[in-house]
Amino acid sequence: MKLMTIAWRRNKIRIIDQTKLPAKLAYRDIGDLGALWQAIRKMQVRGAPALGAAAALGAYLGVKDVKAKTFPEFKKRLDECVAFIGSSRPTARNLFWGLERMQKEALKNKDKSIPALKKILFAEALKIISEDQIACRRIGKIGSRLIKKGDSIMTVCNAGVLATIDYGTALGVIYRAEKQGKRVKVYACETRPLLQGARLTVWELMRKGVDVTLNCDNMAAALMAQGKVDKVIAGADRIAANGDTANKIGTYSLAVLAQHHKIPFYIAAPLSTFDISIKSGKGIPIEQRAREEVTSARRVKVFNPAFDVTPHQLITAIITDKGIIRPPYIRNIKKLISNDKLKMSK
Amino acid sequence: MKLMTIAWRRNKIRIIDQTKLPAKLAYRDIGDLGALWQAIRKMQVRGAPALGAAAALGAYLGVKDVKAKTFPEFKKRLDECVAFIGSSRPTARNLFWGLERMQKEALKNKDKSIPALKKILFAEALKIISEDQIACRRIGKIGSRLIKKGDSIMTVCNAGVLATIDYGTALGVIYRAEKQGKRVKVYACETRPLLQGARLTVWELMRKGVDVTLNCDNMAAALMAQGKVDKVIAGADRIAANGDTANKIGTYSLAVLAQHHKIPFYIAAPLSTFDISIKSGKGIPIEQRAREEVTSARRVKVFNPAFDVTPHQLITAIITDKGIIRPPYIRNIKKLISNDKLKMSK
Repeated sequence: MKLMTIAWRRNKIRIIDQTKLPAKLAYRDIGDLGALWQAIRKMQVRGAPALGAAAALGAYLGVKDVKAKTFPEFKKRLDECVAFIGSSRPTARNLFWGLERMQKEALKNKDKSIPALKKILFAEALKIISEDQIACRRIGKIGSRLIKKGDSIMTVCNAGVLATIDYGTALGVIYRAEKQGKRVKVYACETRPLLQGARLTVWELMRKGVDVTLNCDNMAAALMAQGKVDKVIAGADRIAANGDTANKIGTYSLAVLAQHHKIPFYIAAPLSTFDISIKSGKGIPIEQRAREEVTSARRVKVFNPAFDVTPHQLITAIITDKGIIRPPYIRNIKKLISNDKLKMSK
Repeated sequence: MKLMTIAWRRNKIRIIDQTKLPAKLAYRDIGDLGALWQAIRKMQVRGAPALGAAAALGAYLGVKDVKAKTFPEFKKRLDECVAFIGSSRPTARNLFWGLERMQKEALKNKDKSIPALKKILFAEALKIISEDQIACRRIGKIGSRLIKKGDSIMTVCNAGVLATIDYGTALGVIYRAEKQGKRVKVYACETRPLLQGARLTVWELMRKGVDVTLNCDNMAAALMAQGKVDKVIAGADRIAANGDTANKIGTYSLAVLAQHHKIPFYIAAPLSTFDISIKSGKGIPIEQRAREEVTSARRVKVFNPAFDVTPHQLITAIITDKGIIRPPYIRNIKKLISNDKLKMSK
C-alpha cells in the first residue's frame, strides 16, 4: 500500500501517527487545531516538508467553518490560526512557509466572497501537497546523479516518505538511485532521543527493499574510519542565506566527521526549506525539548536540543528540487531562488 | 555508603550488578566461574580495571578448592580457568593482565605446597584490588593538575567508581579536581546502546554531588560548537604501543570532534591497560555485540561494535598512575613502562 504521510480525508487531516511506528501503522484523523498543534508538538507528524503541508491544511481547517462576513474578519481568524499553528514548533522553515503561503493566497483574493476564499485556500493547501510530491521526485532525480553504483550512504533521522508527503528528500535520492539499479547500501543513524532513524528510516527503507543497516549515533565515526561510508545525505529543517543548515541534532556531528574522513556531505531539501531572511545559522531558532525524551530518571539535568546547525563550510552541496547548489553558497543560493521566482512569475 | 565494585566476601566474588543501576543498587555474590563468565559477558561487571580485578579473583575462585596434588596438575587447572575467563570478552587489556599476573605468580611459586600456592594466589588477587585503588587515586591526583577551576568536562561511558574498584580513572580526575574545590561541570554522553553514561556515570557523579548534565551522544558536537566543553576525558580498554586507544564506542567520535573544536582530548588509564605487545590500534581485537542491544525490531541489520579505536594523533595526553604521557607516544610510553618495571624490580 502506498503511504501518504498527510492527506485530506472527510473534512479532516489524516496523518500517520509516527510515534506508533514501527510497531503499528496507525492513521489519525485530525479535526481541530488543538489536536493538530498537539500532533505536531508530540511529533506524531514531523519532518519539515510534511509540517509545511500539515500547517497549510491546518490553516484551512481553522477557517473552513468560520462565519465571517467580511474579509478583515476572515483574515483575522486566519491569522489567529496561523499564529497558533506556528507556535507548535519553531525550527522547520517549511511550517512557516506553508502558513505564509495561505496568508498570501488569502490577501491575493481578498475581493472574493468568503465561500470562494475558503475554496481557494483549500486548493492552495492541496497544491502545497502536490508540489511537495513533485519537488521530492525532482530532488531524487537530481540527487541520484551524485550516487554511484554500490555506494554506501549514511543518513540521520528520517528525511523520507514520512518526512514529506510520499517520497522523501535524502531518502528520495536513495529511492531514485535504487530504481536506477545502483544497489546502494544505507547506514541509518538511530537518532536519539526519539529514534526516528531506527523507527522510521529503517522501517520505510526495508519496506521498499533497500539494504539498510542500523547503527547507534556514536558508531558513525567508526563506520567512516573503516571506509564503510561513501557519502552522507541528510535532510534539512531550515537553510539560511549562507547555506548554514539546521537539521536534526547529530547532523552537525556527522558533517564534522565526514570532513575528517574526506567523505562528501550532502543536504537534500526543497526550496521551501530555505530562509534567506536569515543570514547565517546563528539566526535559526533551535527548539529545546523536554528532558523526559532523554531519561526517565528524575532530577537529572539534561541537554536536549532537537536540532543543530551545520555551517555551510562543511556541506559539499545542497540538493534541491531546482538543482544542486555548490559553494559559494550565498551567491548560488540567491541565484537559484531568484531564477525560481522569475520562472514562477512568468 | 562507600561503594566497592568488586570485593571478596564469604568465599565469593561480590559485585555490584551494574545492569540494575540506576534503579537499584544490587549486589551479587558469584561462587562459580560459569556465573562469573556470564556476569562479565552481560556486563553486570564492566570497565577495564574492574575486569582485571574480577578476572584475578575468578582465577583464584577456580582453583581454591581444586584437589591437585602436584604443581603441573594445579597449573593445568589454573590455565583452564584463565582461558575460560579470558573468553568472556576480548577487548579490555586489564582482564588478560589480571589473569596473566595470577599465572606468573603461580609459576614464581611452583615449589610451594598447593595450600600455600592457593594462599599466595588469593593474596595476589587482593593485591590487584588494592593496587587499583591506589592507581586510580594517583590518576586522579596527576590528572587533576590539568583541570582548571570551573572547567566543563565531557566524558563518555563510565570510567568511574563502577569501572574500577572504588574511585575511577577519568572520573577519578574529576573527583580529585572537585575535592580541590575546582567546581567542575560534567557533560555525560549517554553512551548507546547500553547507556552506561546515562545509567552509571550520571548516577555516581550525582551521588558524589558533582554537577552533571546528561546529553545524547549525537549532541556532543553541538555542545562543543557552543563553547560548552573545555576538555574531554575518557577511559581506556586497551592502549597499544603507539598510543592508539580502544575505548567504548563513540570515544573516537568525540576525539575527532574535540580536534575540530580545538578542545584537549585526554585518556585516563592505569599502566595495566597498556598492551605494548600490540604495535597499533589495528591489532586490538574489537568485540561485536548482539543486535538486540540496539533494537528489538526483528530482521533489522545492526552494526554494534562495543569499542572503537582512537588514533594517538587525536589524543592530547594519556593520564596514567605513573605520570602524564604526551607525544611522541611510542617513545614516551616505552620509557614510562620501562621505568616502572625498573622500580618494581628494585
